[in-house]
Amino acid sequence: MSGTDRPVLAVLCGEQRPPDMEPIESVASVRYADAGELPSALRGADALFVYDFLSKAVPGAWHAADRLRWLHIASAGVDPVMFPELRDSDVVLTNSRGVFDAAIAEYVLGLVIAFAKDFAGSLRLQQQRTWRHRETERVAGTSALVVGTGPIGRAIARLLRAVGMRVAGAGRSARQADPDFGDVVASDDLARHLPGFDVVVAVAPLTEHTRGMFDAGAFAAMREGARFVNVGRGELVVTADLVSALREGRLSGAALDVFEQEPLPPESPLWTMENVLVSAHMSGDVVGWRNALVELFADNFARWCDGRPLRNVVDKHLGYVPSSR
Amino acid sequence: MSGTDRPVLAVLCGEQRPPDMEPIESVASVRYADAGELPSALRGADALFVYDFLSKAVPGAWHAADRLRWLHIASAGVDPVMFPELRDSDVVLTNSRGVFDAAIAEYVLGLVIAFAKDFAGSLRLQQQRTWRHRETERVAGTSALVVGTGPIGRAIARLLRAVGMRVAGAGRSARQADPDFGDVVASDDLARHLPGFDVVVAVAPLTEHTRGMFDAGAFAAMREGARFVNVGRGELVVTADLVSALREGRLSGAALDVFEQEPLPPESPLWTMENVLVSAHMSGDVVGWRNALVELFADNFARWCDGRPLRNVVDKHLGYVPSSR
Repeated sequence: MSGTDRPVLAVLCGEQRPPDMEPIESVASVRYADAGELPSALRGADALFVYDFLSKAVPGAWHAADRLRWLHIASAGVDPVMFPELRDSDVVLTNSRGVFDAAIAEYVLGLVIAFAKDFAGSLRLQQQRTWRHRETERVAGTSALVVGTGPIGRAIARLLRAVGMRVAGAGRSARQADPDFGDVVASDDLARHLPGFDVVVAVAPLTEHTRGMFDAGAFAAMREGARFVNVGRGELVVTADLVSALREGRLSGAALDVFEQEPLPPESPLWTMENVLVSAHMSGDVVGWRNALVELFADNFARWCDGRPLRNVVDKHLGYVPSSR
Repeated sequence: MSGTDRPVLAVLCGEQRPPDMEPIESVASVRYADAGELPSALRGADALFVYDFLSKAVPGAWHAADRLRWLHIASAGVDPVMFPELRDSDVVLTNSRGVFDAAIAEYVLGLVIAFAKDFAGSLRLQQQRTWRHRETERVAGTSALVVGTGPIGRAIARLLRAVGMRVAGAGRSARQADPDFGDVVASDDLARHLPGFDVVVAVAPLTEHTRGMFDAGAFAAMREGARFVNVGRGELVVTADLVSALREGRLSGAALDVFEQEPLPPESPLWTMENVLVSAHMSGDVVGWRNALVELFADNFARWCDGRPLRNVVDKHLGYVPSSR
């Protein structure tokens, strides 16, 4: 901002405005806007807070961003704002890395145990008032490949290790002796490594390189009866190929919190497949998450006003915040 | 056994005989019997292997046990064989302590996460093809009281701690600085301690002291919205009091793997309560559990033949194997 002018902050939100904004409103002119109002809110704005992180409205309103210098998104994945004009601009992009890590890790661990102990089967039997003893599986001693070695993947790896699973990661470049993953294999070489694991967890950022990485070839490479967990982005998966792999019994189960199309359309076959667990893009959204998102933004906003370095600056060519490791 | 006579082993089983018995059959006369055949099998038998550990047939056949010296039961709980005539006899009682510990611990951890993340709610919404985002809860930072400090309780405590929960135990006598529990409070003083925990896990042995310990008073003492997990014995709980506590919303959920009456009768209200997870007494029964049970028995059988000390000798007045700690 220039001199003593109050900075102008546009906030893209739906009906639900972000909480805890008073401290920011006291030092900035804040314009709350929905998708339709975004162009006029962006005109003359210095910064944009994409609170409605699922909105796809930013590219279409970009023409009005005549003095924008900073865009912060209330999510870990930045794929909704990775369009060429932003990528090639000088606008700094930051994300909400860190807010969701531990919660998503618990969610994934719970899903892994739920499959091993067939909680879904127990619930269906309960609905039929049917008592049927079944043998269950141990979790300790089984193995998981966590595809995505950012902080969420790391938190997942730590928690799966804590219950005795053998864990490896898949990331941009292969390496060994990683503190959380032990071995990291190269994502480019995924199919060669997939056969070695009982569970495959997708938590990679959505980029040009990762879009559709879980396709027929990947599912064919997985161990017979493997399970697949997606807490990353739906577009990492070729859904039709996943459905085939599940129908053919190659995979024994899939737990999906994210989908190519959200909300998942009523006609999707995934809803009714017994070996699929569907949830509504919520794995990281624990009570208080909205406050945590605004708290992170407010900290970055104070840094931005003071000219201090921002947290979570996204490498716009990679499509995520590069790891400091 | 006397001299070179082959020992006579009675095995109480249902339709399903124990696996892997060949080594024992090569050195003993083995009589497989169901409940009706048990008296004639017991007559002249030196040892009894209660493989059908849920059977209540032993007390009624006891009159025929004219030379029995050892009874081994294929379960951790010995309550089905804790009748006065056995308790007051010289017959040595051993159990299957150790076989179920780690599997039950995983099961309990899975249930705790399933509640926090509302997996049951997600499954019900999936059945209705309904996309509904909800906020979930963190598990780390919440607290659990594990009532029962035997090896299963210890395994549960270790696993809940591993995901960041605060854990304490409740056992016969209060103590501090326990390696697994930290603090152990006295079960006799349970109501005073129950308010301090988000989750209460019942895994105590069923004895005269523990029968019905979870009654209206206990549920009233629990934290508003607490959750209750029973992987011990159904008779630890006054079921009607539990149902009331759930209906009144004092407890926000209960996961029950064991029941006063098993199979749970179709008319039980527990089947249809949305905040109750019912499973069919299977928390410890992982693939291979029957082999593990027979392996433990076979090891004890070899010890018994050789006159070496048996593993898992139950203190018949306590009703469980006293901890070596």
